[in-house]
Amino acid sequence: MIDKDVHSHHISQQFNVELDDVKTHLLEMGGLVEQQVRKAISSLVDADSDKAEKVRSDDSDINDMEVAIDEECMRILARRQPAASDLRLVIAISKSVIDLERIGDEAGKIALQAIQLAESGESPRGYKEIRHIGNHVGFMVRDALDAFARLDIDMALAVAKEDKLVDEEYGSAVRSLITYMMEDPRSISQMLNVLWALRSLERVGDHARNIAEQVIYLVKGTNVRHFGITQMTAEVMTPEKRGQ
Amino acid sequence: MIDKDVHSHHISQQFNVELDDVKTHLLEMGGLVEQQVRKAISSLVDADSDKAEKVRSDDSDINDMEVAIDEECMRILARRQPAASDLRLVIAISKSVIDLERIGDEAGKIALQAIQLAESGESPRGYKEIRHIGNHVGFMVRDALDAFARLDIDMALAVAKEDKLVDEEYGSAVRSLITYMMEDPRSISQMLNVLWALRSLERVGDHARNIAEQVIYLVKGTNVRHFGITQMTAEVMTPEKRGQ
Repeated sequence: MIDKDVHSHHISQQFNVELDDVKTHLLEMGGLVEQQVRKAISSLVDADSDKAEKVRSDDSDINDMEVAIDEECMRILARRQPAASDLRLVIAISKSVIDLERIGDEAGKIALQAIQLAESGESPRGYKEIRHIGNHVGFMVRDALDAFARLDIDMALAVAKEDKLVDEEYGSAVRSLITYMMEDPRSISQMLNVLWALRSLERVGDHARNIAEQVIYLVKGTNVRHFGITQMTAEVMTPEKRGQ
Repeated sequence: MIDKDVHSHHISQQFNVELDDVKTHLLEMGGLVEQQVRKAISSLVDADSDKAEKVRSDDSDINDMEVAIDEECMRILARRQPAASDLRLVIAISKSVIDLERIGDEAGKIALQAIQLAESGESPRGYKEIRHIGNHVGFMVRDALDAFARLDIDMALAVAKEDKLVDEEYGSAVRSLITYMMEDPRSISQMLNVLWALRSLERVGDHARNIAEQVIYLVKGTNVRHFGITQMTAEVMTPEKRGQ
């Protein structure tokens, strides 16, 4: 199912263009944010301070995009007074942009841990976990954005399911790192840098899930924020209430 | 400056009632969230698992309130098609409600640390810091909500300033706890429970600041999300653009 299906009922061609534009800007911002996460992870794993500094300084571009998209949404709300699925699209964008900006913040926090680790010497453990969970949430962000681009609720549901797996992987990584910390307390400080970075990655997964939930809201008109996976699956399976 | 000043231009009395209602619901939710944070802190400090379990189970009430207020906002947007300061009010509420819900989540996470600490035995350090930073962010949440209730931008600015202090207090608490952990590695696991709880408190401060920023946006029409304190102060000092 593609965007045009939902928005084909517009009388105003200009309004269609505005909606397409703001959605395109969201996806562009998403692409940048996804890159920031990947660069932050590689800066940590490769102990590359320069790359980490770049991630931190580029965060202001993401902040600017957030403000610009938010203004676009407000302008559409004020001038076009959208209803039904158009209103949902604008609201879903204005909420997703907050999550994207927060993912950008988490990338910045991971980069900060990377800088500290590059200074203090590497951690004896945890890089495998950073790489693994980092990859996992990186794909989640990309899939959540793809789901938004195509209004693909099955893909959105898959992202929500992945978030549960990430939470489990995170819990297990933290437990094993804590065990190791107790065995080798000299490395506590570096291990904590890794733990903070892992926690940031887990948050990235949460935000990807939030965006996926907006896709389901947009298509189905149902707020699934506090649904469990079973309830969310049932919602995705029920016939759509088009143009409501 | 009170709410009526901004919203006195309505023709529809019923619309005024709807706006007042949704704002009241936000503030009620805020009151509950503030309580959850305070209870979570005292459950941790007093090693009171029952209280901590109650905080966790009561989180669903907060989630329900989030969904209900969000629906109210969407209904107003769809039916009333608000403009100018009314539109800003609805958008500010629909964003603040997300922050309140996340504060509720952080209270739940603190309660989880409380439960783990009650099981594993108390941490040798960190309670003073939890109490101190917990009090600080508790007041910030209350002040952010008061600022929203009264549309008081000076108070909102004060909350943003407090957030900077909390970040400093948090950084210093983390550093001293890490030093202690290295000296006494047997208590790593409990110290980490305290560190996670402190991190949650620091997040609560961030969310209170976000709500304060919405108050400035609401009154001044300016998005101050990525302003530093100096720039934000300048914005608050400039004359208001009423009813824009």
